[in-house]
Amino acid sequence: MAVYTDVSDEDLDLLLTEYNLGEALSCKGIAEGVENSNFLLHAEKGHFILTLYEKRMNKADLPFFLGLMEHLASNGFVSPRPIASKTGKTITEAAGRPAAIIEFLEGRSVKRIVPEHCTLLGESLAKLHLAASDFSIKRPNALSIESWRPLFNSSLSGQDQGHIKESELQEIDIELSFLEKNWPTNLPEGVIHADLFPDNIFFLKEKVSGVIDYYFACNDFLAYDIAICLNAWCFESDASFNITKARKLINGYRSVRAITDLELEALPLLCRGAALRFYLTRLYDWINQVEGALVKPKNPLEYLKKLRFLKDVKTISAYGID
Amino acid sequence: MAVYTDVSDEDLDLLLTEYNLGEALSCKGIAEGVENSNFLLHAEKGHFILTLYEKRMNKADLPFFLGLMEHLASNGFVSPRPIASKTGKTITEAAGRPAAIIEFLEGRSVKRIVPEHCTLLGESLAKLHLAASDFSIKRPNALSIESWRPLFNSSLSGQDQGHIKESELQEIDIELSFLEKNWPTNLPEGVIHADLFPDNIFFLKEKVSGVIDYYFACNDFLAYDIAICLNAWCFESDASFNITKARKLINGYRSVRAITDLELEALPLLCRGAALRFYLTRLYDWINQVEGALVKPKNPLEYLKKLRFLKDVKTISAYGID
Repeated sequence: MAVYTDVSDEDLDLLLTEYNLGEALSCKGIAEGVENSNFLLHAEKGHFILTLYEKRMNKADLPFFLGLMEHLASNGFVSPRPIASKTGKTITEAAGRPAAIIEFLEGRSVKRIVPEHCTLLGESLAKLHLAASDFSIKRPNALSIESWRPLFNSSLSGQDQGHIKESELQEIDIELSFLEKNWPTNLPEGVIHADLFPDNIFFLKEKVSGVIDYYFACNDFLAYDIAICLNAWCFESDASFNITKARKLINGYRSVRAITDLELEALPLLCRGAALRFYLTRLYDWINQVEGALVKPKNPLEYLKKLRFLKDVKTISAYGID
Repeated sequence: MAVYTDVSDEDLDLLLTEYNLGEALSCKGIAEGVENSNFLLHAEKGHFILTLYEKRMNKADLPFFLGLMEHLASNGFVSPRPIASKTGKTITEAAGRPAAIIEFLEGRSVKRIVPEHCTLLGESLAKLHLAASDFSIKRPNALSIESWRPLFNSSLSGQDQGHIKESELQEIDIELSFLEKNWPTNLPEGVIHADLFPDNIFFLKEKVSGVIDYYFACNDFLAYDIAICLNAWCFESDASFNITKARKLINGYRSVRAITDLELEALPLLCRGAALRFYLTRLYDWINQVEGALVKPKNPLEYLKKLRFLKDVKTISAYGID
């Protein structure tokens, strides 16, 4: 849950003078999004999400994120569309922070994932990749493999209370070295969502009604996005891997965009990398917990367990694909 | 901000089978309410607030709170109306907790209070008192003067890290004794809101569009409710007292319901009592902070400063009333 910056009446009225949305009828902080402050805004012209971008967000990235959402929506993808101000800007300012007013999409994220959700997820992910393929702005992946070792080292330098066992450190170090040595270089690239967890996709009447939260989106291997989703959607809560869900996800994706043989072969390795990436960022946030923070950091252990499973996967037959 | 209990899809779908509201189109946890979990629910039949009552709430009080809201709304007061289930119940269950679905009221609470807000507040408070006058269920004030000394003692028993200065303890003890000796007994009684802080009243187009959060409502002196509002609305952030706002509040109230001479004379004392009540509950919450709690306790000092001002007020001329 996240509302870091309070928006006063005056802030809101001032902001809305920049838009053609009429007056604000109500505005409520919502428990959504981790990095920024989000409000459900009911204005005379409709329902919207008001986002204030907090300090952790690099302002220079906002044109990419908001441009991508606009581009996706214009290409028929279920991304919420940023609302343009009277002067055509999608990035404005409120309460001293960069702000955006974004279309409100109906739908609900799922807590209990069934295989059919994975089919719909796969289809949507492929549609996103296709719809973004001619997006002109580029953003390198700030959490690509090159960043993992520095991230790991900076986590370690901050830890002096025995957060991690020595054996675990060695295990991660070995895994890092292996991935650095074997990471693919020749896979199809494009814009990826890079954080398509169940929180970020809305379903309504057995369809996908929205894909939100593009604040990790970047240019990277398209198949790496599939790997992130396999990790996030196809493990059960006891860390067991659900091959039915994996097959549905991949086949859903393939029904929209073909996966090349090279990509398929690379998937087991990409999944290991994706698991390590989420383990490392969670580890960093876990060690660097801010006293009184509104958001409880997630336990990195979940992703260590996934990583241990994935290390033994050599071919994509483990994902139910021949 | 408060979302303590997560509502899964299944919980929500199950809950909505009990109502005639159609399907849930979206449901978002909102940063509103301190004691309970609140969600903004968009169902096919409209927008609603879904509240899950958490453990701190005494279930036996729910018929009073929801009955009061229903009664107020039926008497034309701007209270949100609880929605009745197919079997006529306003209290149902979701995710293992008592739940209610309540009408969504438009409007926004004010952060920067101007005198005109106090006129509108005074009018609304009096309207609430009149609209509730024939409500049949009774609820004694759990935070009445009789509760203050036990509350003070239990705060002290929990404090061993020097939270409060010895001189402050003596000051509170003397004030408590004074109020216990002089508290009035013969004022007009009725249902009071008992927590009508700026967060709990919505304005829209220069009118009051909603009064919410009845979870401290009870039977007590009507003028005590005015005292709570004077304390909450008429002090500036530097603890100075704004006599213009006080006069507007009282005159707004009087334009709807006459204030008797006895009530007017008692107001200075009631304000001292109301200040002490909020000081004591904040002190208790301050000393008994829960590690990792979602809600930051408010500093009791604000109310100690108010109390110190109010102790010197002998007549209602300090409120701009002759």
